[in-house]
Amino acid sequence: MDSLKSRALAYHEFPKPGKLSVDSSKPCTTQDDLSLAYTPGVAEPVREINRDPENAYRYTNKGNLVAVITDGTAVLGLGNMGALASKPVMEGKAVLFKRFAGIDVFDIEINAPSVEAFIETVVNIAPTFGGINLEDIAAPHCFRIEKELRERLDIPVFHDDQHGTAVIVSAALLNALEIQGKTLGTAKIVFLGAGAAGCACARLLKIMGATNITMVDKDGVLHSQRHDLHANNRDLAIDTNARSLAEVMPEADVFIGVSAANALSPEILKLMAPKPVVFALANPDPEILPSVAMAVRDDILMATGRSDFPNQVNNALCFPFLFRGALDARAKQITVEMQIAAAHALADLAREPVPESVLLAYNLTELSFGKDYIIPKPFDPRLIERIPPRVAAAARQAN
Amino acid sequence: MDSLKSRALAYHEFPKPGKLSVDSSKPCTTQDDLSLAYTPGVAEPVREINRDPENAYRYTNKGNLVAVITDGTAVLGLGNMGALASKPVMEGKAVLFKRFAGIDVFDIEINAPSVEAFIETVVNIAPTFGGINLEDIAAPHCFRIEKELRERLDIPVFHDDQHGTAVIVSAALLNALEIQGKTLGTAKIVFLGAGAAGCACARLLKIMGATNITMVDKDGVLHSQRHDLHANNRDLAIDTNARSLAEVMPEADVFIGVSAANALSPEILKLMAPKPVVFALANPDPEILPSVAMAVRDDILMATGRSDFPNQVNNALCFPFLFRGALDARAKQITVEMQIAAAHALADLAREPVPESVLLAYNLTELSFGKDYIIPKPFDPRLIERIPPRVAAAARQAN
Repeated sequence: MDSLKSRALAYHEFPKPGKLSVDSSKPCTTQDDLSLAYTPGVAEPVREINRDPENAYRYTNKGNLVAVITDGTAVLGLGNMGALASKPVMEGKAVLFKRFAGIDVFDIEINAPSVEAFIETVVNIAPTFGGINLEDIAAPHCFRIEKELRERLDIPVFHDDQHGTAVIVSAALLNALEIQGKTLGTAKIVFLGAGAAGCACARLLKIMGATNITMVDKDGVLHSQRHDLHANNRDLAIDTNARSLAEVMPEADVFIGVSAANALSPEILKLMAPKPVVFALANPDPEILPSVAMAVRDDILMATGRSDFPNQVNNALCFPFLFRGALDARAKQITVEMQIAAAHALADLAREPVPESVLLAYNLTELSFGKDYIIPKPFDPRLIERIPPRVAAAARQAN
Repeated sequence: MDSLKSRALAYHEFPKPGKLSVDSSKPCTTQDDLSLAYTPGVAEPVREINRDPENAYRYTNKGNLVAVITDGTAVLGLGNMGALASKPVMEGKAVLFKRFAGIDVFDIEINAPSVEAFIETVVNIAPTFGGINLEDIAAPHCFRIEKELRERLDIPVFHDDQHGTAVIVSAALLNALEIQGKTLGTAKIVFLGAGAAGCACARLLKIMGATNITMVDKDGVLHSQRHDLHANNRDLAIDTNARSLAEVMPEADVFIGVSAANALSPEILKLMAPKPVVFALANPDPEILPSVAMAVRDDILMATGRSDFPNQVNNALCFPFLFRGALDARAKQITVEMQIAAAHALADLAREPVPESVLLAYNLTELSFGKDYIIPKPFDPRLIERIPPRVAAAARQAN
């Protein structure tokens, strides 16, 4: 048993199983306390909420409570592990929500007989929550599930694997382009991977101003003549004669890989324009290792999904703070405007001087905006101060 | 605004809304902690659970996590308040589960379009939990919901309003009969109220040895000739010519009211046998006030649902400890045997000398087994030591 495996299992098992504890947030030691928390006192907030549903935000935890919901069909990089086996991941997500943004989370693992039944189940339990974070649900079901839930519920519904990734990638790319002396509106951008995450990233970047995006999947370029595309990525197909990654990579300014280990060869990397941006986000093994890429050319700016390389594209930089802002504004949806606000807030924060506490947390002596630091670190205490207010402002502006 | 109302609302609103907080039960301050709690380390327990579902009890909180689930159709004595408005009660129940038995609870308020949809919803989210406590669901739906869920799920499902009440009433009655010099097998018992709670009490008492039970509802005695009875209480109808409460109360040894305020008149109380037992459990106003009853005759032993009179029949004496025992034994159901074990454990505990700490908690100088003390106090620290092991033993014996 290797060290990470044994340590991870021990962490989950001892001193008691799992990672979450639900506790009273109010005094509950005396009989008088309980007469307020439960009968007879509890009848009063019940009546107030029955009179006006908005009072649920005043007298219950609803307004700070997010459901992290999965069907376990696309767990991490492990695939369809089933609802029950996904529970450690969902509990972990709950830990991150609380650690970074003070949000209470119930993890809900759903084993439903159909997509319809999954959707109905979420709709039926929705009164409990102030927001819903969908997690690790396989494509294409994830698209329909998110769309229907957004339409039917009046609380924020957010599929983190799609839109959380898109926010971080956008933030990182804004800064990467700045450092490499390029602009979003003119950069030639190539995506390898046209699944849920890749498509969400591409769409957000287009809304933010990108004009030249080519998507490539395992069957080649997404071009207008392809007949195997489905409703979930057909909108991203372009008119082009190029058919392969090798054909579209010459003079590309940006490569964004959301595909598989080692999918980007050094030979193709050489074809890119000067000062390219390479986001190799496949986890745990990126499309190209930084060491391999840097050996080919030293004008690259790189990011990966890993914490042991610089510029980690880490969803924990987004979802806690995005939901914090949404809950604070009592937004009924997480709009594109709110996602863009989060991306800009993240990009802006990385350009500021890094406080001592962050250096200490990461055991670093120096960290400043540049090739090895384009995006904030997850333990940066300024995240909770900077991101949610801008998300909340975007939410309020829309209403 | 009266004092209880304003205090209860303030308790629920400040310093922040609601009564629950979900927190990490494991270290989560460093990047290394998070690499165990979330990616990459979390993949290990996922694989272990995927390999063997039983490992969910080893690596997640499932085994200590109970869902308190309602549709809000019978909230306290307030009636159908709706799912959302019931949330303060369910959060309160969660507080009690944690306070008394260390059990983590997610409160789930379900707004489903039908009983079928409610059942399917609970089945679909069940992988998340180690047990399900149904709460404040109106009859007759509660019967079908509990029955189907018990059949379809392999975790304990328990409708507290029925069976929790039955356990406490049985415990209290065992001791009340002892003190009054009567036995369960020979006592003439009259129930006023044949709803969910009353019927569950009567059935449990029959299993425990009661032979002479007459049920009375608002239309009179449940007798074999009545045609308005339904599947949920027809089994409790008896062959008798008596038709009214006044006709069945002469020489009754036990009156158990689960009906409405002031439903038992002093005149009818006078008809009972010497040394009667009167449980007037309607809340907040009992079928007869102790002061009124005692003015009629002083040979009564009384219990109510209220904390400001002696002998409070309080569900908090049962559900935390019953579930603690069920979870500890990893029982797949909460059987009648487990409920009877809990009732006997409660009855036995009340016969023991009361420790100083309990006297202090209730600001009492003396408390000993007798007419004014037939059932333990909720803040008795011995409850968690005594009840769960006997419930768990009963669970293990059955398997």
